[in-house]
Amino acid sequence: MLKVNSDYCKLPGSYLFSEIARIVSDFAAAHPEVDIIRMGIGDVTQPLCEPAIRAIHEAAERLSRAETFRGYGPEQGHRFLREAIAEGDYRSRGIDVSPDEIFISDGAKSDIGNIGDIISADARVAVTDPVYPVYVDTSVMAGRAGTLGPDGRWSRLVYIPVTEDNGFVPRLPEEKVDVIYLCYPNNPTGTTLTRAQLQPWVDYCRQHGSLLIFDAAYEAYVTSADVPRSIYELPGAREVAIEFRSFSKTAGFTGLRLGYTVMPHTLVGLECDGNPVSLHRLWLRRQTTKFNGASYVSQCAGAALYTPEGRKSVADGVNYYLENARLLRESISASGLKVWGGVDSPYLWVKTPDGLTSREFFTQLLHRHGIVTTPGAGFGPSGEGYVRLTAFNTRENTIRAAARMAENVK
Amino acid sequence: MLKVNSDYCKLPGSYLFSEIARIVSDFAAAHPEVDIIRMGIGDVTQPLCEPAIRAIHEAAERLSRAETFRGYGPEQGHRFLREAIAEGDYRSRGIDVSPDEIFISDGAKSDIGNIGDIISADARVAVTDPVYPVYVDTSVMAGRAGTLGPDGRWSRLVYIPVTEDNGFVPRLPEEKVDVIYLCYPNNPTGTTLTRAQLQPWVDYCRQHGSLLIFDAAYEAYVTSADVPRSIYELPGAREVAIEFRSFSKTAGFTGLRLGYTVMPHTLVGLECDGNPVSLHRLWLRRQTTKFNGASYVSQCAGAALYTPEGRKSVADGVNYYLENARLLRESISASGLKVWGGVDSPYLWVKTPDGLTSREFFTQLLHRHGIVTTPGAGFGPSGEGYVRLTAFNTRENTIRAAARMAENVK
Repeated sequence: MLKVNSDYCKLPGSYLFSEIARIVSDFAAAHPEVDIIRMGIGDVTQPLCEPAIRAIHEAAERLSRAETFRGYGPEQGHRFLREAIAEGDYRSRGIDVSPDEIFISDGAKSDIGNIGDIISADARVAVTDPVYPVYVDTSVMAGRAGTLGPDGRWSRLVYIPVTEDNGFVPRLPEEKVDVIYLCYPNNPTGTTLTRAQLQPWVDYCRQHGSLLIFDAAYEAYVTSADVPRSIYELPGAREVAIEFRSFSKTAGFTGLRLGYTVMPHTLVGLECDGNPVSLHRLWLRRQTTKFNGASYVSQCAGAALYTPEGRKSVADGVNYYLENARLLRESISASGLKVWGGVDSPYLWVKTPDGLTSREFFTQLLHRHGIVTTPGAGFGPSGEGYVRLTAFNTRENTIRAAARMAENVK
Repeated sequence: MLKVNSDYCKLPGSYLFSEIARIVSDFAAAHPEVDIIRMGIGDVTQPLCEPAIRAIHEAAERLSRAETFRGYGPEQGHRFLREAIAEGDYRSRGIDVSPDEIFISDGAKSDIGNIGDIISADARVAVTDPVYPVYVDTSVMAGRAGTLGPDGRWSRLVYIPVTEDNGFVPRLPEEKVDVIYLCYPNNPTGTTLTRAQLQPWVDYCRQHGSLLIFDAAYEAYVTSADVPRSIYELPGAREVAIEFRSFSKTAGFTGLRLGYTVMPHTLVGLECDGNPVSLHRLWLRRQTTKFNGASYVSQCAGAALYTPEGRKSVADGVNYYLENARLLRESISASGLKVWGGVDSPYLWVKTPDGLTSREFFTQLLHRHGIVTTPGAGFGPSGEGYVRLTAFNTRENTIRAAARMAENVK
């Protein structure tokens, strides 16, 4: 019989997030009278902005006529979008990124999952803890994680705690690692690092020849002047970092599927024969072989976000969720709970009261207030003792959830 | 410095298809007076059908209003599309496939490239020769191909010739292999296998516990009654085969990006501990971890193809290209050249005259007639001595190309 990838067998059978979904759905079925407000997952609620909608209609029109029909685009993405991104997200902000260094994807999750393809199987990987589970799970699938211990830690992964104890500022790994995943503004904690706090990570990678996999999916939420929106704002980052971005949380493209990856020409790895090789070249080969580009319609919608009207719409949408985050943060804080994030981020990270576990507090919030959160333990061992709330609901639901959270301590 | 995936280093630096593209573009620049007709690549030319266009506009409308907005869909695809496919492509034809067994993708190339993720790294792989290069290249990237020999063959791959010598009917491998890639109707040869000719492959896989990776991207072109459109028409196939399908060549979705993979619940592999494991479960885990679903807009357009009007449009589109194929086939045949395919397929496979190599004949056709083909050698060692033409051009260009081909021998 066919042998399967033995690394897949190591993944735990039950995925916390699907278990949570089941618990919520069972609760909803058992208590139809409860008005449940879902603040657990990171999906948006606001409709697409007018410029994106118009771009979809126009793309459909072009696809409907032979003279303007577009078939296969370049696997790397249409040039019109790559140029808009390079100018709009980088060059206009004084950051050196060329259109050729941008790879359009169907969303950051795909590329973050697939990037491991081009890296040596024995690379030593570091992740912050708590962490977006995709970094860990894809490391497991690629055989880089070792075995799962009873403490919830994988033997070959290096965990970098990010908790109240260190003020949510991770410390550099003490040993040498080959790959470091960082997500800032952070999912799940909603915290950020300043330029000064991020620079040592870039320097560490330059010193050790490590690769920095920088997930900037939430960069649009940055409002603080000392927090970078791109890793390439930092000197030396072009030699060590790949940056992943998404239109999902920026412009509500969760259903439309569009993101991009920046792979600077200056990134170099070592071939088995010891010769240097461009990571850009390997990724291009990976993408041309296993991917056929993102939808033309989605790419047209994405390009529309870089027009003056599109920029304003994106800013309005981000501000809508930032205001939700502010409302949540204030009411949670007023209720006496400790809360982080929600300033330069759509995520809030709340400490459980009375020594409750994250699962217990999750259950309490669901049963008492009908509010769905995500237990922090689902994001890693150091997520225990916290729950995550997202600001992606409607204003109305957010106000109601904030009021219920404020009730919690009374 | 970071070590890269050493299997990527094995891939030959220059990819024949990009080299061909460069040759054609150089020729075009040097001979602006030549009216070049491109019959080399498999991209479509006809606009999207009216039902698909309408569905895109309607999807955009829904995404523009909060009440009807859709964010993340299930990674496996929206249920409305999976049900339409299960009913339209399988159950209505008496084939047992359930919506739960269907995974919507952003195109067959992605899933065919990624399917290797769930298979053991040391699996022994067989491919027909000539072959769609993605099967070989992704096997190389996964470390299953061994080393490239001077004869253009990878040491660990089993090559199954499909040539004039065996009437384009491949023989079963003599040794035991774990994975077999088959594409029927075939790319690049345009030939097909009857149910009776395919059944031994299913039986072989059942006998040896092998996995059949069946690429049915061109099934819509089947018109002959004894040629199956799905591998699951054959008894036993549900125990051994994964089927990949695409809307690219069926409905012109090359730019829209939509396909699907059928993963029957009855497919079982062996875990490292020797226990059986459902491949469906592993693939679901792969997709939920590394993919976030195809674009909602594309999925709506796909569902529209299963309405009565959509079905008619798809049939009309396929018939348009089949008529192109017939015209090409007749003129090539009349010119005295040997040709295969083009009956149940949009591809034609032409034997080079006078013992020319495929590159020489490619060059001759480009220089004498301004017709771009693809040299068969690009598809594998047994592709030498043939060129491929596609029927995806416009009727007008096809008629002109057919006339020029007929000129060839005069």
